[in-house]
Amino acid sequence: MRNYKFPKIPEATIKRLSIYHRVLNELIHEGVEVVSSHRLSELTGLNAPQIRKDLTYFGEFGVRGVGYFVIHLHDSIREILGINKKWNVILVGVGKLGQALLSYENFEKQGYHIIAAFDTDPSKIGKKFGTNEIPVMPLDNIKKIAKEYNVKIAIITTPSESAQIVLNVIEEAEIEGVINFAPIKLTPNKKVTKISYVDLVTELDKMAFKITSS
Amino acid sequence: MRNYKFPKIPEATIKRLSIYHRVLNELIHEGVEVVSSHRLSELTGLNAPQIRKDLTYFGEFGVRGVGYFVIHLHDSIREILGINKKWNVILVGVGKLGQALLSYENFEKQGYHIIAAFDTDPSKIGKKFGTNEIPVMPLDNIKKIAKEYNVKIAIITTPSESAQIVLNVIEEAEIEGVINFAPIKLTPNKKVTKISYVDLVTELDKMAFKITSS
Repeated sequence: MRNYKFPKIPEATIKRLSIYHRVLNELIHEGVEVVSSHRLSELTGLNAPQIRKDLTYFGEFGVRGVGYFVIHLHDSIREILGINKKWNVILVGVGKLGQALLSYENFEKQGYHIIAAFDTDPSKIGKKFGTNEIPVMPLDNIKKIAKEYNVKIAIITTPSESAQIVLNVIEEAEIEGVINFAPIKLTPNKKVTKISYVDLVTELDKMAFKITSS
Repeated sequence: MRNYKFPKIPEATIKRLSIYHRVLNELIHEGVEVVSSHRLSELTGLNAPQIRKDLTYFGEFGVRGVGYFVIHLHDSIREILGINKKWNVILVGVGKLGQALLSYENFEKQGYHIIAAFDTDPSKIGKKFGTNEIPVMPLDNIKKIAKEYNVKIAIITTPSESAQIVLNVIEEAEIEGVINFAPIKLTPNKKVTKISYVDLVTELDKMAFKITSS
């Protein structure tokens, strides 16, 4: 296998690769073997020149005048994104949003395996959530579990006031990637830590602005 | 009041305005009257020149060498974003994720009032969710409720296979803004419809890529 190491791919491109990946997944299930950039454009809502540009960025996946070989393109994108393997993930904060994510079946389908959840509430410890029966454990166990299962990604769904403390514990457990749903800016202690923010209110703010200014 | 109509503000700027807005909210609660771009930088994680640039974009909120007046800046951003009024919102699809969002208290705090939820499952109709006891109704009621409460934003949290049908109903009810959590591309029937996508798997894909390529 070729080794894809492109430290400078823009985040917007990565986001689009993730979208192509899911669409290609569906095409494989439908038995489609070749897809044109025009068809990918219809399925993704992105324009065809953008798609062609994104895909040539990484080498030659297409055959001029024919299209892209679905399985080849799919596998290459998986390799580029680093999702050609399973990722073990933990979740911290088993409130309403946390429980919803533990039951969200698309993570598992796309190769993200939430192996354990963590909470400080004694009444939640020992309970299991979701179809995969993900167990809830005390925060003290994060380090042990992270090491044992080679966990690289943690999802934070705690209230804002606990999120920084939880980040500290996650970093001590040598987990590099954090997806933070708590609406608060976190300060990493280590250079290697990567934090991404999912902010649901911001989505509503952006929409309110679009409607107001249209 | 001045009338802010800037159809061409980039989405990235809007996202940052939303972040400034929340931070300023917190500063008001702490009784802070003036804030420097340096302090805003610490609180948001964005760099100070970027912040100064964003804020001059809309006029003069700052006093050189002193900083920004917190309340004035806060109110101006609310006006720009169109969140200086309450927005009535509906949610369609009362599964795990939908229920979590109905219980998510930050929406209400920031001026987004989910007034009703909708589902096709008869066992859910008539139930109430969240601290605001949001009632679940059949999809047939969307049009009536949207008109009665002047609803401009709908959140879709249905399975992928129902999302397009739900969008059609939402558009018939003359709701302009749609925030879609279903991992599928939707096709609007009207020019005026604005759809934004929140894709949780894409967030994990981006993180997996960052870790793989670092």
